[in-house]
Amino acid sequence: MKILFTFDPEKELRNQLIKTFPQCEYDFVKTINDAGQLLSQAEVIVTMGEDLEDHHIEEATSLRWIMVTSAGMEMMPFEKIKEKGILVTNARGIHKIPMAEFTIGLMLQHAKQFIPLNEQEHEEIWSRRLPTSELCDQTILILGTGAIGQEIARLAQAFRMVTIGVNTSGTPVKYFDRIETIANLESLLPEIDFFVSVLPSTNKTRYILKKKHFEMMKASSVFINLGRGDVIRESVLLKVMEDQDITHAFLDVFIDEPLKEGHPFWKMKNITVTPHISSTTKMYVPRAFDILKHNLRTYIHNKGDYINIVDVERGY
Amino acid sequence: MKILFTFDPEKELRNQLIKTFPQCEYDFVKTINDAGQLLSQAEVIVTMGEDLEDHHIEEATSLRWIMVTSAGMEMMPFEKIKEKGILVTNARGIHKIPMAEFTIGLMLQHAKQFIPLNEQEHEEIWSRRLPTSELCDQTILILGTGAIGQEIARLAQAFRMVTIGVNTSGTPVKYFDRIETIANLESLLPEIDFFVSVLPSTNKTRYILKKKHFEMMKASSVFINLGRGDVIRESVLLKVMEDQDITHAFLDVFIDEPLKEGHPFWKMKNITVTPHISSTTKMYVPRAFDILKHNLRTYIHNKGDYINIVDVERGY
Repeated sequence: MKILFTFDPEKELRNQLIKTFPQCEYDFVKTINDAGQLLSQAEVIVTMGEDLEDHHIEEATSLRWIMVTSAGMEMMPFEKIKEKGILVTNARGIHKIPMAEFTIGLMLQHAKQFIPLNEQEHEEIWSRRLPTSELCDQTILILGTGAIGQEIARLAQAFRMVTIGVNTSGTPVKYFDRIETIANLESLLPEIDFFVSVLPSTNKTRYILKKKHFEMMKASSVFINLGRGDVIRESVLLKVMEDQDITHAFLDVFIDEPLKEGHPFWKMKNITVTPHISSTTKMYVPRAFDILKHNLRTYIHNKGDYINIVDVERGY
Repeated sequence: MKILFTFDPEKELRNQLIKTFPQCEYDFVKTINDAGQLLSQAEVIVTMGEDLEDHHIEEATSLRWIMVTSAGMEMMPFEKIKEKGILVTNARGIHKIPMAEFTIGLMLQHAKQFIPLNEQEHEEIWSRRLPTSELCDQTILILGTGAIGQEIARLAQAFRMVTIGVNTSGTPVKYFDRIETIANLESLLPEIDFFVSVLPSTNKTRYILKKKHFEMMKASSVFINLGRGDVIRESVLLKVMEDQDITHAFLDVFIDEPLKEGHPFWKMKNITVTPHISSTTKMYVPRAFDILKHNLRTYIHNKGDYINIVDVERGY
């Protein structure tokens, strides 16, 4: 049984995998375009998820399972995959810890004025006049109440924050003091201090945030987008920040990534740009490999207890 | 009954106090040196805690109670206060929330590489190669297991960190996975990732940290000092950071404050200087006033349930 990796994992992880499953044959290529004939022989493809196209699926005539070591499924050729009846699993769930830590980190960076403190330090200025604040007693609204949203809410509650979640059903979710449906979003906006989106990109989430939403928020409030860039049009968000409807936006995701040099987001004082890094830590690939190993054992022994099967109809 | 404030609180807080206790007479002066004759008439002095000297206590012949709206008691003329039998209360406990938030904020700033990310942003560079990490599964050692240390440990546990506390008795304390006495410090140092001191300055804590302690720590570990600067000699800490025994030091407190322009701490890349700001947020004075109001009610009605009586023998 041949397993083709379309990326090059660290030596240690690779060796550990080979040692655990010596019955498999492994091929590691740097990109899928280097795979050549290996593609037609592979029964399993392990991919970071943004490289597979229809013609690869056609060429991979032995393919039975695709393990994606990320969670973003927008680039997957699901039509073709469905046609061939190929199993897809992914690494969703491993993002929640780093992304929740990143979110709290950004909120504290804002509340504790770490960037202005850093600028003062460069000038050797000792001044305690910065408008530092607290997370305690502040209200956070999280768009998306899945694993990532819940982990953010859990930590926010530890900080004695009030947590409001918005999802499609309005059904109660652990760690949220209150859950509302998206239909009630507008009535919530005037109360909140932090507005966090961890929404994926789907037909239902694309461009759902409008200028009016930010106009309803406090001038002191903060927007954090760690989900997908297309939850709001770039031109709309630019206008929001130019008009200072809110005080700051932290953006980790963009409609076109990498964000181009010269893009106005880079330059605006009240926008912080980070390079889609909230889930990326050195723990990322090891955690994805834990899922891979579990699922590989399941595949080999035909046990049927896969973690994270992707519904190829729905695309997630 | 006359109450003398040796600082000028916000109008709103002042008015609220006057409205709550209209039976008292209030004097507000900008510094104690502006008090003049008011000093001899004051039955109560409300002070930020660093202005009272022996001669003030001598002159304040009506004085029965000093309410200090901070927690640092190093500058209080306790000998003279004891001689006169004056009650002292302070605002200890109100620091724990902002200081714990600040500590977690610094750890996340380090783990998430927020300062290098900010530098990249200035250059409009999209790069995901920074060595970002997580707090999850890391070990934090906290010197001092009082209210502040416990609040840091509580939040650290929420981040799935391992929490070790060091105190004088070694008695278990809530939110610490493990408590050790200071005598066992050396054996703990090789395991830890974050080393946080919230110790006050006393004869027992002064200069207790030595070069050897940092040499025992991991090269990747981080030191955070939010307690008092004199837990380590400046020359020793400089040598530690020059030798890169650890990767970073976050210093909020110093032996001489404000830290002078030109001091080597300002310039070192692996030292972050903040201006003794960890407990200062806009919630600080309102929280101190809550204690003042409680204690003033107690004083007026002679109820005996004071919050935060200071032991003038021990000085805290």
